[in-house]
Amino acid sequence: MENTYLIEKDFKELLKEQSAYKEAIALAHWDMRTKIPKKGVEQRSEVVGFLAEKLHQLETSEKMKYFIDVLKDNTKDEIVRKTVEECEQNYERNRKIPHDEFKEYVMLQSKSEAIWQEAREKSDFTLFQPYLEKLVDYNKKFANYWGYEKNIYDALLHNYEPGVTTETLDQVFPALRNSLTSLLDKINQSTVKPDPQVLKGHFPKTKQEAFTLDILERMGYDFSSGRLDETIHPFAISLNINDVRVTTRYDEEDFLMAVFGTIHEGGHALYEQNINPNLASTPLATGTSMGIHESQSLFWENFVGRSESFWSSHYELFKNYAPEAFQSVPLNQFYRAVNEVKPSFIRIEADELTYPLHIMIRYELEKALINGEIDVKDLPGLWNEKMKDYLGIVPPSDKEGVLQDIHWSGGDFGYFPSYALGYMYAAQFNHTLNKEMNVNNLIASGEFDQIREWFTKHVHQYGKMKKPLEIVNDVTGEALDARYLVDYLTKKYSGIYQF
Amino acid sequence: MENTYLIEKDFKELLKEQSAYKEAIALAHWDMRTKIPKKGVEQRSEVVGFLAEKLHQLETSEKMKYFIDVLKDNTKDEIVRKTVEECEQNYERNRKIPHDEFKEYVMLQSKSEAIWQEAREKSDFTLFQPYLEKLVDYNKKFANYWGYEKNIYDALLHNYEPGVTTETLDQVFPALRNSLTSLLDKINQSTVKPDPQVLKGHFPKTKQEAFTLDILERMGYDFSSGRLDETIHPFAISLNINDVRVTTRYDEEDFLMAVFGTIHEGGHALYEQNINPNLASTPLATGTSMGIHESQSLFWENFVGRSESFWSSHYELFKNYAPEAFQSVPLNQFYRAVNEVKPSFIRIEADELTYPLHIMIRYELEKALINGEIDVKDLPGLWNEKMKDYLGIVPPSDKEGVLQDIHWSGGDFGYFPSYALGYMYAAQFNHTLNKEMNVNNLIASGEFDQIREWFTKHVHQYGKMKKPLEIVNDVTGEALDARYLVDYLTKKYSGIYQF
Repeated sequence: MENTYLIEKDFKELLKEQSAYKEAIALAHWDMRTKIPKKGVEQRSEVVGFLAEKLHQLETSEKMKYFIDVLKDNTKDEIVRKTVEECEQNYERNRKIPHDEFKEYVMLQSKSEAIWQEAREKSDFTLFQPYLEKLVDYNKKFANYWGYEKNIYDALLHNYEPGVTTETLDQVFPALRNSLTSLLDKINQSTVKPDPQVLKGHFPKTKQEAFTLDILERMGYDFSSGRLDETIHPFAISLNINDVRVTTRYDEEDFLMAVFGTIHEGGHALYEQNINPNLASTPLATGTSMGIHESQSLFWENFVGRSESFWSSHYELFKNYAPEAFQSVPLNQFYRAVNEVKPSFIRIEADELTYPLHIMIRYELEKALINGEIDVKDLPGLWNEKMKDYLGIVPPSDKEGVLQDIHWSGGDFGYFPSYALGYMYAAQFNHTLNKEMNVNNLIASGEFDQIREWFTKHVHQYGKMKKPLEIVNDVTGEALDARYLVDYLTKKYSGIYQF
Repeated sequence: MENTYLIEKDFKELLKEQSAYKEAIALAHWDMRTKIPKKGVEQRSEVVGFLAEKLHQLETSEKMKYFIDVLKDNTKDEIVRKTVEECEQNYERNRKIPHDEFKEYVMLQSKSEAIWQEAREKSDFTLFQPYLEKLVDYNKKFANYWGYEKNIYDALLHNYEPGVTTETLDQVFPALRNSLTSLLDKINQSTVKPDPQVLKGHFPKTKQEAFTLDILERMGYDFSSGRLDETIHPFAISLNINDVRVTTRYDEEDFLMAVFGTIHEGGHALYEQNINPNLASTPLATGTSMGIHESQSLFWENFVGRSESFWSSHYELFKNYAPEAFQSVPLNQFYRAVNEVKPSFIRIEADELTYPLHIMIRYELEKALINGEIDVKDLPGLWNEKMKDYLGIVPPSDKEGVLQDIHWSGGDFGYFPSYALGYMYAAQFNHTLNKEMNVNNLIASGEFDQIREWFTKHVHQYGKMKKPLEIVNDVTGEALDARYLVDYLTKKYSGIYQF
């Protein structure tokens, strides 16, 4: 074994350059979605394209290959070893796609997104169909370049949830689906319904903002390492561990969007803010997967934010910010109303019980597409059939159906399952957490520090040092199990709907 | 002459890369001064350093040298020709400094700025002195590398106001100084003084913001290509022609800062927003010099914003936004108060009449320093002597004297004269403009379009296609002449102070 100290030093310099490009790109994106003046967008897109190309060049450079080869089995430093692994995977996956094909694909992506927008506006799937066909073809091709063991779709899943396969999903999803639809039946049959009307009313933006800032502060979001801004499609973004920004959207006639949206993005941000500083400027300094990220946002949004304990301790605070109209609503009515279950056409408007059903529809369709079992042209019909089967409703148009999500227009196949996985992870984490502390009591007394610190200790700090299923196993001592989500939902909704 | 079409195409690609880095750097700076969370600053500084280094590499690359050599005398395209000139100058100036010296200098700069801040806080010049000595030495060395004809200081002046020399300044400054001090004498002797008390009072930030946004809109600042944000030290910044941002600062007990500050930065922004779009993505797509830039900001701030005509047409508007306390102040008292002349220690707080005297003090001292005629250690004493001579007051401490400005700590010698030059240019432009239209009538009727369009036609559109003195000559038909500034000030202040 040779002395690799100097080589590691040079390797770290290269990683710093990558981080610098990543921060510049992240800042450009954040600005484009929150601050940029209208006419600045065109030039900015070119700037982002240029910086992304430079980053890509570094990730696939001969220099990078050299570091990987030399350091791979020769470093004693655990962080360097994991970093090399991450870089190697990036390198291999990127190099396997011929440069020309990748460039064509990038152009197809941006064209497709524009066409999808038009198609959605006009609710005309045929406009989007030829583009989607090409996107599916490219993704099949890429999946074959990347390779897989059992199912071609696994190669795509790997981009978002490494380690999770169709085999896993096909084990957990059907049982989850049956449980959810049976819960949904009971809810539909119940005569004890929450009254969503109690949440209706004008809630000024400035008051919503003040309330959401207060909640973020209480969650332990560090404002000296972040900030909250307004946007159209809310997101959290990490520029670096010490600059993790949250965005939200205020609807003055529907305060739920800002409140739960901010708690959700705040959950993502807590993850990124609490990564071990020793990982800074390496590609490990971010959440390990989409699913684990979503477990953090959904834990805070649903298991904390939509819980009875949370509102028992924060309802007075809410009233301090809320206008007159809300002051006379009893706590119990309020709690029930924010947890109304009602099948809806649009995924991002779904309640927490029906949400996973939306995901499964997308998963089943895209898996079949990539496996060549169905054709793109059949998607609208199949979509509506599955909506009828799982949710009992059929969208009146493709705009509210197959055309609603942006993901496929960007070629993002394999992404959707992360949302449901994250939810199951969250429930499983919640189960373990409850064995170690009385979570409801802590929430009910507004003491979030212990909860947040537990997640930092078990999840946040590792960044990409651990794979998603490794985290699940290390934290809970078990493999992924949908039972915890079903138990949580059953307990909660049998209470609310009294069945 | 060979066919250079394809080479020009490649050259333009290189320029686009430069522009992309410049936009990324500008955005990072804007964010650092307006939005960044406290803990994000450290990492961001590294990102900016990295991007600046990449930009510097492009500007001094062999590729750049190749394009300069091939295209220099071989292009028929006027924009390409001027761009090559600009690139060549950049290339030559950068290449003349040995890389090691440049790196040492950059480190010295950032260290010196921190030391200067400490020295200023403690009002202890001796802390700063050794750093300033080194900065002066480096600047002398660089000036010798760059070369000059008559005075070594000219090599530094060239960085900010190409074409202007100490010879020019030594022609215009003494006469200007005599006129200003004699005007100041008359003002001091006058018994008819404005009453600044009428401007005192609480003015809520949100109201100030609404008023300044309204004024910017009326000036013709394009909000679809820009935005207004809050900062500590206001500035305007161009990310590209279609994204030119303005910042301001609100002091609730002194609304003048935000109002005149925003008009000033708005003047800078109008320049950058109205550059010929054909220059986009070339290094010509920005203001031609610090002085011409300052002519635009000062024209709007002083010749428009502090004029009687402006307040005659905008005083009702002001009152719409202003709190009760200001409603009873008569227009004439208000106008006189915003134009109070009073020698002050701090340059950036100076009124428009004494402002150039502050500049001359700095010019005379830095010219003598660079020429080795005085020593750094003698600066505090010399500073105070000149303050006494020109303004009749002596700062109580170096904090309010020689240590007040950041410029020297960044090694920016040769910058200060631009402020006074810009003011003289503005007066000279104003004189010409008045021959073509009744400027006061237009201002008095709130019609700024013709004025702005005149500046776009004669100044803005050219970006760096014309040198500063070329613009002055083309617009006014004359060489630089301080007379117009003296005439303007004499007329205005003999009215206000009745002498």
